[in-house]
Amino acid sequence: MIKTPEQYVESLRDGRIVYQDGELIKDIPTRYEASVNRAAGEFWLAHQPDTKKLFAMEEDGEEIAFSFKIPETGEDIQRRREITQTLNHWNLGGARLTGIDSLNGVAHACTVLDKAMGTNYSENMKKYRAWCKKNDPGICAAVSDPKGNRKLHAEDPKQAHKDFYVRLKEKTKDGIIITGCKLHISDAILSNELIVLPSRNHNEGGKEYAVACAVSCGTPGVKFLATTGSRNGGHPMIIFDDVFVPWERVFMAGEWQFSRLFATSFARYHRLTASTYKAIQLQGVAGLARLMAEMNGLTHATRIQDHLAWLAMYADVTDALAKAAALSPVYDQGTGFAIPNPVYTNAAKYWFASQWHEAMKYLQDITGGIAATMPSMKDWENPETKGYIEKYLRGASEYSTEDRMKAIAQVINLGSCAQGVLSIHAEGSLSTQRMVIYQMADWDRLKARAKRTLGMPVDHPAFKDLPTEPPWAMPASMLKK
Amino acid sequence: MIKTPEQYVESLRDGRIVYQDGELIKDIPTRYEASVNRAAGEFWLAHQPDTKKLFAMEEDGEEIAFSFKIPETGEDIQRRREITQTLNHWNLGGARLTGIDSLNGVAHACTVLDKAMGTNYSENMKKYRAWCKKNDPGICAAVSDPKGNRKLHAEDPKQAHKDFYVRLKEKTKDGIIITGCKLHISDAILSNELIVLPSRNHNEGGKEYAVACAVSCGTPGVKFLATTGSRNGGHPMIIFDDVFVPWERVFMAGEWQFSRLFATSFARYHRLTASTYKAIQLQGVAGLARLMAEMNGLTHATRIQDHLAWLAMYADVTDALAKAAALSPVYDQGTGFAIPNPVYTNAAKYWFASQWHEAMKYLQDITGGIAATMPSMKDWENPETKGYIEKYLRGASEYSTEDRMKAIAQVINLGSCAQGVLSIHAEGSLSTQRMVIYQMADWDRLKARAKRTLGMPVDHPAFKDLPTEPPWAMPASMLKK
Amino acid sequence: MIKTPEQYVESLRDGRIVYQDGELIKDIPTRYEASVNRAAGEFWLAHQPDTKKLFAMEEDGEEIAFSFKIPETGEDIQRRREITQTLNHWNLGGARLTGIDSLNGVAHACTVLDKAMGTNYSENMKKYRAWCKKNDPGICAAVSDPKGNRKLHAEDPKQAHKDFYVRLKEKTKDGIIITGCKLHISDAILSNELIVLPSRNHNEGGKEYAVACAVSCGTPGVKFLATTGSRNGGHPMIIFDDVFVPWERVFMAGEWQFSRLFATSFARYHRLTASTYKAIQLQGVAGLARLMAEMNGLTHATRIQDHLAWLAMYADVTDALAKAAALSPVYDQGTGFAIPNPVYTNAAKYWFASQWHEAMKYLQDITGGIAATMPSMKDWENPETKGYIEKYLRGASEYSTEDRMKAIAQVINLGSCAQGVLSIHAEGSLSTQRMVIYQMADWDRLKARAKRTLGMPVDHPAFKDLPTEPPWAMPASMLKK
Amino acid sequence: MIKTPEQYVESLRDGRIVYQDGELIKDIPTRYEASVNRAAGEFWLAHQPDTKKLFAMEEDGEEIAFSFKIPETGEDIQRRREITQTLNHWNLGGARLTGIDSLNGVAHACTVLDKAMGTNYSENMKKYRAWCKKNDPGICAAVSDPKGNRKLHAEDPKQAHKDFYVRLKEKTKDGIIITGCKLHISDAILSNELIVLPSRNHNEGGKEYAVACAVSCGTPGVKFLATTGSRNGGHPMIIFDDVFVPWERVFMAGEWQFSRLFATSFARYHRLTASTYKAIQLQGVAGLARLMAEMNGLTHATRIQDHLAWLAMYADVTDALAKAAALSPVYDQGTGFAIPNPVYTNAAKYWFASQWHEAMKYLQDITGGIAATMPSMKDWENPETKGYIEKYLRGASEYSTEDRMKAIAQVINLGSCAQGVLSIHAEGSLSTQRMVIYQMADWDRLKARAKRTLGMPVDHPAFKDLPTEPPWAMPASMLKK
Repeated sequence: MIKTPEQYVESLRDGRIVYQDGELIKDIPTRYEASVNRAAGEFWLAHQPDTKKLFAMEEDGEEIAFSFKIPETGEDIQRRREITQTLNHWNLGGARLTGIDSLNGVAHACTVLDKAMGTNYSENMKKYRAWCKKNDPGICAAVSDPKGNRKLHAEDPKQAHKDFYVRLKEKTKDGIIITGCKLHISDAILSNELIVLPSRNHNEGGKEYAVACAVSCGTPGVKFLATTGSRNGGHPMIIFDDVFVPWERVFMAGEWQFSRLFATSFARYHRLTASTYKAIQLQGVAGLARLMAEMNGLTHATRIQDHLAWLAMYADVTDALAKAAALSPVYDQGTGFAIPNPVYTNAAKYWFASQWHEAMKYLQDITGGIAATMPSMKDWENPETKGYIEKYLRGASEYSTEDRMKAIAQVINLGSCAQGVLSIHAEGSLSTQRMVIYQMADWDRLKARAKRTLGMPVDHPAFKDLPTEPPWAMPASMLKK
Repeated sequence: MIKTPEQYVESLRDGRIVYQDGELIKDIPTRYEASVNRAAGEFWLAHQPDTKKLFAMEEDGEEIAFSFKIPETGEDIQRRREITQTLNHWNLGGARLTGIDSLNGVAHACTVLDKAMGTNYSENMKKYRAWCKKNDPGICAAVSDPKGNRKLHAEDPKQAHKDFYVRLKEKTKDGIIITGCKLHISDAILSNELIVLPSRNHNEGGKEYAVACAVSCGTPGVKFLATTGSRNGGHPMIIFDDVFVPWERVFMAGEWQFSRLFATSFARYHRLTASTYKAIQLQGVAGLARLMAEMNGLTHATRIQDHLAWLAMYADVTDALAKAAALSPVYDQGTGFAIPNPVYTNAAKYWFASQWHEAMKYLQDITGGIAATMPSMKDWENPETKGYIEKYLRGASEYSTEDRMKAIAQVINLGSCAQGVLSIHAEGSLSTQRMVIYQMADWDRLKARAKRTLGMPVDHPAFKDLPTEPPWAMPASMLKK
Repeated sequence: MIKTPEQYVESLRDGRIVYQDGELIKDIPTRYEASVNRAAGEFWLAHQPDTKKLFAMEEDGEEIAFSFKIPETGEDIQRRREITQTLNHWNLGGARLTGIDSLNGVAHACTVLDKAMGTNYSENMKKYRAWCKKNDPGICAAVSDPKGNRKLHAEDPKQAHKDFYVRLKEKTKDGIIITGCKLHISDAILSNELIVLPSRNHNEGGKEYAVACAVSCGTPGVKFLATTGSRNGGHPMIIFDDVFVPWERVFMAGEWQFSRLFATSFARYHRLTASTYKAIQLQGVAGLARLMAEMNGLTHATRIQDHLAWLAMYADVTDALAKAAALSPVYDQGTGFAIPNPVYTNAAKYWFASQWHEAMKYLQDITGGIAATMPSMKDWENPETKGYIEKYLRGASEYSTEDRMKAIAQVINLGSCAQGVLSIHAEGSLSTQRMVIYQMADWDRLKARAKRTLGMPVDHPAFKDLPTEPPWAMPASMLKK
Repeated sequence: MIKTPEQYVESLRDGRIVYQDGELIKDIPTRYEASVNRAAGEFWLAHQPDTKKLFAMEEDGEEIAFSFKIPETGEDIQRRREITQTLNHWNLGGARLTGIDSLNGVAHACTVLDKAMGTNYSENMKKYRAWCKKNDPGICAAVSDPKGNRKLHAEDPKQAHKDFYVRLKEKTKDGIIITGCKLHISDAILSNELIVLPSRNHNEGGKEYAVACAVSCGTPGVKFLATTGSRNGGHPMIIFDDVFVPWERVFMAGEWQFSRLFATSFARYHRLTASTYKAIQLQGVAGLARLMAEMNGLTHATRIQDHLAWLAMYADVTDALAKAAALSPVYDQGTGFAIPNPVYTNAAKYWFASQWHEAMKYLQDITGGIAATMPSMKDWENPETKGYIEKYLRGASEYSTEDRMKAIAQVINLGSCAQGVLSIHAEGSLSTQRMVIYQMADWDRLKARAKRTLGMPVDHPAFKDLPTEPPWAMPASMLKK
């Protein structure tokens, strides 16, 4: 089944507890009306003839959201990218940007876990996925923990308390009780389901932190502290205050050896999603920079052209790498899952994240000091001052002062700390990507390539039948010595 | 005379017209109380026994602010730096950060202009400086013009109008009438005097834009549009709506050939001032990063240590270059002015401005996602949520949650677009510094150095008496061949 | 027909005049034996069952080299990449790395020229291509001119002489006479044919420089000055000393308006070829760095892992971008030519070229000082010193000293100025790629993306039917206000 | 006493054993004549009236080389810089670039060691210094060890052997016997004395590696393996094959706790020396780039001007930081030694080393492809080809082809791997400087600066008496509320 927008809106009225800026939110759809409409758009598109063929698929005679399908090929992954791109083009979305990635990441991880430990979590996951197909929930990943003192393990007594990572507090006959907090949970307010999973590895001493499960947003004990000033709840802190989760929604419960796998398996999918929507944002950044350069009369200047070329390249390289990651996946033998190419995916994420601040520098360089000193929109509305602003903040005649002010406002918005931090930290810090690339690069092939040049013996399959010397050489009779 | 703080406060009640966020400000000291107190601190310090010897000097039997002295040596320049540093250490200032630089820059430029054109502007300047010594005004530079379409000259008919650069609209027997607007005029609200000067060169066709003069803040026709949200008026737009300036306060009136000189002469002083206060800000950035790393338990990590080392270096290199610029000045032959070393000054400014965004990337990398997603201070005050925040946003046990939240708030503040834009654009864009360094580097000496290595003839004084071959060589008898 | 290796070797004995290191080369195959064998390998592979299907194709019942086929699809372009990759894997090649790109570039350009000017050069090109298919020559592009004073046009009388760019000196009934010099002509010694084309635009005053043609290497007046120390002739200067070219081998003769098109049309193909072989070299660099890190016992260090991750990413990103460029070509309407995607191609080239020196810094950082101070191989062979070297230059026990020394020697070789210069300048300088990206980026689409965010009207096809507001919104009845 | 050049030359004939490129050198002054003349120049200058006052000083009625004076003030350090600069300007030097730094570093370290352990090494050092003043030897530091597998300690049995670090093999009544090898020992062939000291810390298990001493170059068992192709012996490997060192020349013998101190104490002095001579080299690089730009007719191009500005800044910033390091030294309490400011010194070294490859990229970008493809000087001498080269490799008319070729040759030389590696690794790798800056930065002051901004209590002396609030505030009576 695919929800109607109306059904989606109603589904957010599940008794969830949300605080923002000191106030308890009474009704989610009312308080976050504009954002809820944008999120509802995903369900609306899935019902329209033109976009249905992208968003929906038939399975066992029923129409379901394509997003819930297990990705089995590069094309499946690429289709998820197209869903993300389409939502972005329509300025829609919010119901499940991270959630699908956590669904797939956890599904893959618990299959591996089951195989190693003889457990049966993947059955839970299969049923949960079937439930999702049937109920079409908004869904999001709840991964980052507050961490406290990062140097210390979660269970270290030197931590101020033991709840810096979500933990399994108690097992009962019917389920588990978890406590703790997850941070920066994008789109959580607009979701129905939270997929809770560990943010890092844990040792045996910290096995209570090795917990993965699905929690509905309205579950007693769940509390959302939305980001200050945000119009959609932002990336809230979520408190889990002794929350009960029935066994059929548990995907790991103490198997600490697999804690890291859950985190990385999610991240592999999610870094691609991020590279997908970020590429679109970066296209907007490049376009905005060009607009600003035109408004300021700067397109003739070599240095500005260099900035613009770099920004266009910045956007397009991100997109090309993301597409390459989708279309050159790795296949997990045991599960049949297609997983985005890890080197390309992490390279895409690292590329956009490590260069964001440089991009903002260029954008601000083109915009000029006015991005720091613009008078208020209230001065714009004040008839005593509007005329001065209109006159003096005009740029090139082809553009109105108002459009220039909107563009400057967007430069200011993009240049905020929040945007910088999200570029770096959403989907894992810069060092994580370097670490993953270090771990996942095909060093055997790369070393074989080098050894071949050095004349060292090479047994890598890609090179092993190749001769060191040219396969054909002039016979002595052809030489004139 | 050196003003008392009380006198300074009263001096701001001169009838000036200031708008902020849509409202006409009724009383400057009341509206901007905290900032006015900080600015008044400069006058207070000049009267205290300990700091008087730095801030004040005696001249002709009268006590005056040292800042108004013509800089004649590197030590004079360095003492201005120490005044700036002292104000920063006390968290004070605002009355004359840019103004002294414009006073000195204009003084130097109009001396050169007089010599070339037979005019007499430097007499005006001498009298004006004497007036300053006597009246001890807050003073600021009004330099940046809105520019409109930057590709076009000010007078180009394709500009939307002809007032994108402040211009001399009319000369009368008693003075001149100027019209136009200056942008981003730091500390203008806290000053008494505006030193208006051109922001760039103008051609003969644009000679009406070649105008420099001193304008009191309360002069009829002057209107300030303060920066939105600022607590001190920020960097307001200043409107000059047919403002009359008497001849004795005019320092250039149409001599277009010298337009650029006024701009660059100011900039040489001001980039050093900027490097001085920025070095202090950067020390705070390095210290904040270290604090944040301790709060997050990250000081053991190699990558974090590398970030921290870089940030400490970033701050200290800026300071070392600024000090070198002060202590290796160039001396203007005609005027006796000492001017900060142009290569070191521009290198200091370029270094801090070009790396600011990188520094913020490191700071944000250390801080973590919380700098994008922190709940509101109102949630902190709400008893239903405070406990959760206190518990989960705690870092290492040595620091309280509250201190960590303050530190995060400061990371957010530093990471704003405004801070980035000010780093780049205050005191001229990055390309300006490269251009100046290209123009001012001692290429003859550098080329001579290279030519000497190549064995090409060198006539540069630094090398000309040096032999190409070693001055002493073993005689054949010492060789064993 | 596809040549046998024997035929290829004999074809180099065409009377060509080659100087290297002060000496006139007597017999090309004998002097450059090893390199000729490597080049001959391309012909040998084209006859082997396994590789024939890649290198060869049938056309009109005859077997021809696939390389001479007009690229009509992304797959055609990708197949040329695979040919280049295969040759690299076998350590072979040299007969036609640049030549095919010039053939296709010139073919495309003279079609455009004919259409605009009513000339008939593309007939010449068709016949020439047919001749190539039949005779299977080694072929290379002769593009770069010496340029003299780059600030001046070729014909400027302030140039030291008028031959800094190859020029058409005379037209006769049977053909043209050209004079001048081409520089850095990779693999020229191993080719049979030189495709001469302009390196830049020329004005009407310089129309004699607008000349493109095919010249056999043995043509009277052609002289090669090979690169010092090279084993394959390197990238020789080629002198054209009044060389006669028959009309049927002329592709432009004075149509100055198209001079730039010939240069850029070649470059579009060639930058992709370069990105293809460079990606392979970079894989070798990454692998060598890893080997070196293992030999030195450094793989545990965070900073070294970061270097290695970066190097792996450097290589793989180059490859991903090159592949994307091949598979997302643009199609020339008039001619049916598929041309590599210009933004991806230039981004790939810019990426690898702009980062080469950084890569070498990392490689040298890992290797250590020994890459500057290694004793000679002669000391290694000297029994009095070999033992010391063997003992002290040993690294980790898993590798022999000899292998470590070979690896260090390769680090030294890669770190040479020549490698740096080739990375930057082969296929056009860094600024050229930025310029091309600035010119070819799809600014309309990028600006539309930005305008949509700003709420400005958008008429770009990609966005024009999309609503600004969400297509579905809660009716008032669903709100609880 | 100060040696005459003749005495210096003769002093190199001490029976030392030197191998280069497979051959045993018969006579040092004859084989390395030109370099020996350059080194002898230092002694010659010390006797000339003009330069004597810099190079020489009187002590106890005797004239001695200033270099042997203990540095007690910033001015002393700066004077050593001037000696280095003067030698560079004359193209002289080689007798003691690193040696003085090791003398001072070891002197400081063994004073600290004595104080802690009750030993008496500093007496040895005092006598040794007195001997130096009297005998005026060439002197160099022998620090870097081959290291083998860097991950393992020197004494780890997994190392291929135990001699990867110089070690104290035996103590006898009269002295010690050392064995091992030191690498990359600049100017060793031109010295008389080697100051041997550890390159890193060692644990108690490796106390035999904690050894520092002075060894004359002709001592039995010492063997030099000079760098291949070098004209002055380069940076040879030095073998210590059971070398006997009398006790009076021993400065540490097993006190492993101080091993690191010897290394860092040397490095603090030596990084400043390096920054001093490197600044001069970088001035040559900037000048060469400018020359090359003029020769190629490129000085009008914005991008080239930006490169040039950057290169000038690169050189001058290095110099300014080095000067700041000299003039803001730290003073060792116990010993009275002045030591270059560690943050400025390491920042100078890090700055020049981390940017060298970028500088070469710019230089090569300006030079063009010819730096990879230049024909041989033999082609230049061959009358059949010289004319072509002279004609076509000419640049702008103001310069001869020959000068342009010399300049290109210098670009090639600077761009070599050896130059890159020396920039990075001489005086410690890049990560070492970051580490030292991390360790030596004045974090207490930096954190205090940040805390003050955050309103946290500050007890640092620089801030502790400063009020948080402005010291003066308007009384309520002055407000208009």
